[in-house]
Amino acid sequence: MNMNYQMWHVVCVLFTTSVLQGCVLADYWSDREDLIENDRSYGLGATLKLTEKEQRVNNVLMKYKLSEYDAGLEDLDTFLAAQHYFKVKDKIQYSKVFDIIKRIPKGASLHSHDEALVSEDYLFSLTFRDNLYGCIDGDDFKLYFFQKNNISDSCNWKLLSDIRKSDVRFNRFLKTKLTIITDDPEKSYPDINKVWKTFQAIFKSINGLITYKPVFEDYFYMALKELYNDNIKYMELRGFLPTLYDLEGNIYSQEEVVGIYSDVLKRFQRDFPDFFGAKFIYAPSRHCDNSTMDTFVETFRKIKKLYPDFVVGFDLVGQEDMGQPLTAFVPQLIELKNLGAKFFFHAGETNWYGETDLNLFDAILLNSTRIGHGYSILKHPLLSKYVKEQQIALEICPISNQVLKLVTDLRNHPGNLLIANGFPVVIASDDPSFWGAKGLSDDWYMAFMGMTSRETDLRFLKQLAINSIVYSSLDSIQKNAALSLWHNDWNVFIENMLIRFRYRM
Amino acid sequence: MNMNYQMWHVVCVLFTTSVLQGCVLADYWSDREDLIENDRSYGLGATLKLTEKEQRVNNVLMKYKLSEYDAGLEDLDTFLAAQHYFKVKDKIQYSKVFDIIKRIPKGASLHSHDEALVSEDYLFSLTFRDNLYGCIDGDDFKLYFFQKNNISDSCNWKLLSDIRKSDVRFNRFLKTKLTIITDDPEKSYPDINKVWKTFQAIFKSINGLITYKPVFEDYFYMALKELYNDNIKYMELRGFLPTLYDLEGNIYSQEEVVGIYSDVLKRFQRDFPDFFGAKFIYAPSRHCDNSTMDTFVETFRKIKKLYPDFVVGFDLVGQEDMGQPLTAFVPQLIELKNLGAKFFFHAGETNWYGETDLNLFDAILLNSTRIGHGYSILKHPLLSKYVKEQQIALEICPISNQVLKLVTDLRNHPGNLLIANGFPVVIASDDPSFWGAKGLSDDWYMAFMGMTSRETDLRFLKQLAINSIVYSSLDSIQKNAALSLWHNDWNVFIENMLIRFRYRM
Repeated sequence: MNMNYQMWHVVCVLFTTSVLQGCVLADYWSDREDLIENDRSYGLGATLKLTEKEQRVNNVLMKYKLSEYDAGLEDLDTFLAAQHYFKVKDKIQYSKVFDIIKRIPKGASLHSHDEALVSEDYLFSLTFRDNLYGCIDGDDFKLYFFQKNNISDSCNWKLLSDIRKSDVRFNRFLKTKLTIITDDPEKSYPDINKVWKTFQAIFKSINGLITYKPVFEDYFYMALKELYNDNIKYMELRGFLPTLYDLEGNIYSQEEVVGIYSDVLKRFQRDFPDFFGAKFIYAPSRHCDNSTMDTFVETFRKIKKLYPDFVVGFDLVGQEDMGQPLTAFVPQLIELKNLGAKFFFHAGETNWYGETDLNLFDAILLNSTRIGHGYSILKHPLLSKYVKEQQIALEICPISNQVLKLVTDLRNHPGNLLIANGFPVVIASDDPSFWGAKGLSDDWYMAFMGMTSRETDLRFLKQLAINSIVYSSLDSIQKNAALSLWHNDWNVFIENMLIRFRYRM
Repeated sequence: MNMNYQMWHVVCVLFTTSVLQGCVLADYWSDREDLIENDRSYGLGATLKLTEKEQRVNNVLMKYKLSEYDAGLEDLDTFLAAQHYFKVKDKIQYSKVFDIIKRIPKGASLHSHDEALVSEDYLFSLTFRDNLYGCIDGDDFKLYFFQKNNISDSCNWKLLSDIRKSDVRFNRFLKTKLTIITDDPEKSYPDINKVWKTFQAIFKSINGLITYKPVFEDYFYMALKELYNDNIKYMELRGFLPTLYDLEGNIYSQEEVVGIYSDVLKRFQRDFPDFFGAKFIYAPSRHCDNSTMDTFVETFRKIKKLYPDFVVGFDLVGQEDMGQPLTAFVPQLIELKNLGAKFFFHAGETNWYGETDLNLFDAILLNSTRIGHGYSILKHPLLSKYVKEQQIALEICPISNQVLKLVTDLRNHPGNLLIANGFPVVIASDDPSFWGAKGLSDDWYMAFMGMTSRETDLRFLKQLAINSIVYSSLDSIQKNAALSLWHNDWNVFIENMLIRFRYRM
């Protein structure tokens, strides 16, 4: 349909045939419908055709979506996706839309960080392990495993089991050190810098907990398990490769840590043979100087050589506004490229304009495979056009962007516009552990309800799953295999939904 | 420059010539610069060429802008445009960027409402007029002028001068009834519906104050004067045409009210001959039924016949989420069109998606001359393309959208993207009276600092002024005259700035 013809036709009719008002109105309504449909055809997933069975599942999904949506139109307080995640996270679990999303085979998780993967509950459960000590160090609370009588540190370390016995409020206190969750996020975190400060303090708190080798292995295994339970079969993990320790005084190097990841993954795939796999993106902190960056290059050289299939790329992480821009390290980044690193740069995770967001130019000039967040990319017309044409996927992390104070109401997230305009987009979870999410379902729910139109349906969700494989760093043979696995899962999902909803269709 | 060549060139160099790293890097930086420049060339005003004199003024402006911007990068709390307007409105007055913006000939004010035009101070000063009474009516505080001993209403009316004598806190109370300003906007207005409730209560409070004919005349005169003082020479006013009253018991009909506007305007233009003029957009409430809409059509018919040049168009106002959609009144709107009404519909002033925002389709199908707000238009790819191609201007009201709870941080306002992509945009004030703004300068400041890139300069502001005339409803002869007047003012502004800044250049 030609847009200009379409609209000028209407306008012309309106102007010239006032005597034929009935006729004009008939045209008006049909033209309006065509126009709305045409407008929607640009959206992510809009080109997918649903089978008759998929359509029946879609009908139930949309009944639930419209019911939630229209309740929100009546009473905004009931509309979860317009509110702060901390205030609605428990309520989301009761949403019928969420229930369906949980069951959808969602493909891959493409953007999450090594120390913020598992659920809040599992992370907390790790603090009950033997030999775990805690101590207060200024504003921070540190955790570490020691053998009894083998503590050299000057901090006033106490065994957690002892603290728990003497202080009934300790567990509550400890939980505040494991996530950034709060009842009153506006007051607790008035701006992005304040929330990042707390966010980074969590890493400090849990570092000694997670880098204890036995925990580290269990942690990564559980991370895979929670993805698997959320119907995700493949993962690309960003990790900064902390050195690990154990009670015997052994220290495990970064190469060994990659080996541990690889071993745990193999074990997990033995236990769950239909889990497709995982790849590793080396992602150290952007708060570093040139010589530290040189050591990152060396680390990458080593781990890429040892694990050429598992290690796929490189990224720099940390609060983008505060860290070094990509321009600080162009020679090293070129070297990394020559070492076979694909890039998955965090870029444009900012509200600043003409400053931090310039990282987007470098991410693209350096030929990033995907872009982490790309929150501000639409402020750059040429770059926007380019990522769309070249299919450089944007890893959108709805909840992360909200709780880390880029956006208040997700209905304002630029992801709305990227999705509406059919950009290459995947939905990712970033650091779900720190805000009490699990898997991808919470982010998918927030995106589906808060970042798409009332009418956007199962085709969008299906496309998201497909995108997560298409935009992965798998090679084309692996991609086809992963897509084929996913497609089977999708068909099972549809059949299961048909059984589940048989009385409702 | 060809984008694809540009980037593939870089990428290719990166991949193939690792031995020539020096050469690669030289290319990298120059290619990066070209790319950034090319990206910026899409922005509003980017095609304007500054004269040597303008460039000198621009240098000072940008020195101030960068100084504010970079201070914000260091300490977010100092960056006014990222914060709630109520918290920074007083500080804005001390900004050197603001000081320049105030002096800029800004062209026209194209979107503001009849009862919310004047400054907070002037509105308050009107409450000291003789014969003004007040009474508390439930949650509302009503104001009305009566002749002594001529009060038939059952409310407990008291003369304001008497209340002031007996209650020293009354002025403070009264001020809370004239604006929605509050120290803690997040707490006072947790969501859009709550802020609109207070917003609408203000209209109730001041209605009896403003619709007193002598006040009404002075009010409109002062509205023009405050625009004039803010270097604005033309106005398109939206008004719902309340009936007026006086102490003698006369009631003034809607036709007479238009006559009063027209007379006051003439008087103002006698006093300030270089004020270009004003036009009127009849804009009653969208909270109405079909028969009320019929009366609007009749009113428009009468006032258009009486004042064919002054009365230019039609709009429907009120909280868009809650009021009737345009679809409710298509036959009447077609009739209005046939009566010669241009349309300036409020549309897409919402965060909902696939619901209220559908008004955008109707606004465009009905051939709107401009669109009020159009906040959510980018959620609609086809409509976005159309308004850009057909040059249907979007009236962006930054402060309004923030204080009325569409967006928290203006750096997230979709206007950023409209401006970056060179959409036909004007900046407007909406209801400045109710949030203590005056003229357009506050909105221009927030847009310049919060909705454009760090590098966006005087060309953008110049283009905004030009746009306000180009997208007005003036005919082409009038437009040329207005542009010519504006151009003279602009040249005087540049000369004055050169004198003002002579020691700083």
